[in-house]
Amino acid sequence: MAIRTVLTERFGLTWPIVLAPMAFVSGGALARAVTAAGGLGFVGGGYGDRDWLARELAAAGNGPVGVGFITWSLARNPDLLALALDHAPRAVFLSFGDVRPFAARVKRQGVPLIAQVQSVEMAKAAAGEGADFIVAQGTEAGGHGAARATLPLVPAVVDAVGRVPVLAAGGIADGRGLAAALMLGAVGVVCGTAFYVAEESLAAPAAKAAAVEAGGGETGRSSVYDTVRGFDWPAPFDIRLVENPFISRWKRDGEGLGRNLLTERARYDRALVESDLSVAAVIVGEAVDLVRAVEPAADILARMGQGAEVLLSGAGALVGQAPGRAT
Amino acid sequence: MAIRTVLTERFGLTWPIVLAPMAFVSGGALARAVTAAGGLGFVGGGYGDRDWLARELAAAGNGPVGVGFITWSLARNPDLLALALDHAPRAVFLSFGDVRPFAARVKRQGVPLIAQVQSVEMAKAAAGEGADFIVAQGTEAGGHGAARATLPLVPAVVDAVGRVPVLAAGGIADGRGLAAALMLGAVGVVCGTAFYVAEESLAAPAAKAAAVEAGGGETGRSSVYDTVRGFDWPAPFDIRLVENPFISRWKRDGEGLGRNLLTERARYDRALVESDLSVAAVIVGEAVDLVRAVEPAADILARMGQGAEVLLSGAGALVGQAPGRAT
Repeated sequence: MAIRTVLTERFGLTWPIVLAPMAFVSGGALARAVTAAGGLGFVGGGYGDRDWLARELAAAGNGPVGVGFITWSLARNPDLLALALDHAPRAVFLSFGDVRPFAARVKRQGVPLIAQVQSVEMAKAAAGEGADFIVAQGTEAGGHGAARATLPLVPAVVDAVGRVPVLAAGGIADGRGLAAALMLGAVGVVCGTAFYVAEESLAAPAAKAAAVEAGGGETGRSSVYDTVRGFDWPAPFDIRLVENPFISRWKRDGEGLGRNLLTERARYDRALVESDLSVAAVIVGEAVDLVRAVEPAADILARMGQGAEVLLSGAGALVGQAPGRAT
Repeated sequence: MAIRTVLTERFGLTWPIVLAPMAFVSGGALARAVTAAGGLGFVGGGYGDRDWLARELAAAGNGPVGVGFITWSLARNPDLLALALDHAPRAVFLSFGDVRPFAARVKRQGVPLIAQVQSVEMAKAAAGEGADFIVAQGTEAGGHGAARATLPLVPAVVDAVGRVPVLAAGGIADGRGLAAALMLGAVGVVCGTAFYVAEESLAAPAAKAAAVEAGGGETGRSSVYDTVRGFDWPAPFDIRLVENPFISRWKRDGEGLGRNLLTERARYDRALVESDLSVAAVIVGEAVDLVRAVEPAADILARMGQGAEVLLSGAGALVGQAPGRAT
């Protein structure tokens, strides 16, 4: 079986499930696996590494996947869009910034434009620039995002953007979340955390194992990790991840981090190599409570899709006659 | 028609919709109106004002409504529980603290105990103390709460508490949110913001009008308002409200607020009397985007219930055959 929405019709999908283009995690193999299993895979374009992107697009087999970019970073490396468009992507996914500099070029090539937004105002702007789909991303999402929560943000965005179809992102990692998103008026979901632990993801094995053990209450938002990595993310964006001793310490002391930046950056670089997760980050969202094993992406996708299918098929049974007795 | 769940069966409701026991807002008239329209009304027990509670319980007509308490405040005024139980409440709703000191007494009288929690750990504790229903409240809720978001918190709590039925609170103000909550595994929803603007609510008319105009992105969490009012809320709880110039200023300068507390408290008291909303708070959550008019509670409830009914009835139509063409 399958779930049918405007999203699945447009891309020929079995399930209205999109892989979030996670930088350094959503490589070609993961994107390809999600598409092969009936979802829509995206390679994460990251922070401007052309060789990495070319390699991962090749690994995806060209064509069956989309490419996602951090919009403000793409503005500094605009050539990467040409590289992506040369690979005939299924769609281009832009998040965290103004899509205006890129929208016309994407659409001129007939490539669908998906714009991820974090507020009603950003959604209206993206709709005005001709986005084909708008992703309303809530604060519970892992990785970068902002302050609004998915459950109230999605219907508010649906009401604000008229006929542009909306996807939900943030906090969704199983069939319950997918079915809920469809009830909110979304035509599909974008999932990061659920696929962070996929066998095909490029996250470190130790990080995947830690994600399986972590609870959503251990995650939090801050800018520590971006400061350490030297990524100057603009407001209002910060990053949700599992808070480890390194993050907790510097979250309370931004000035101290500034004074010790070179030392701490070296420490972080070493921790990455050694998979020392007391320093290196496990970048997942609150839905990590629902993530319980490292599995092939196809299994994750099928369980999510089929779980939602069961819930949607049974939803009508909740409707019945009003109770006879006085209330 | 109606929606049937464990919650509606237990209380003989038409819709699985519960009025949040908002302090100073959910008085007897509002609680009674919600119950009369097929939901479950609660009077907000507030901060220990016995006369207020007795008056509002009388206004509710005794019996058809429940009573809600701020658990840590009730621990300082435990006599109020006896007052509430004397009025044969439909249920007792405890939030923000350990239910242990009160659970046995409530249950001994055969009154259902509803425990609102803000994390998976609190949910497990409440289930262990014998709560009949657990409310998983997300950070998008107006008023007091904590950090977790509703969409991922609800299924995580459902999985954690075994057979105890779970309600969703935070971010829900229309039929889409109700239908989504049921897909997440909840048996009902608790709504504050949606009823803050009800004609029967005790919120000031100017505050209701401001809520109708406000957007969810204008709300934020802080402890400024509690500091000013002299309510020493324990961690991890703070309060979401529409951020006005008064809140924005002191949110950035907690020390300054401490130094000017008496002056600022006088200013706040004056603003309350004068409905000066540049100082006095409009205490609503992110779902305020979905709130568009001051109406009778019965109209709000019927639109929410019927909206969810239409969505649930139609959900099965989203399931179909997988697309024929290769993906």
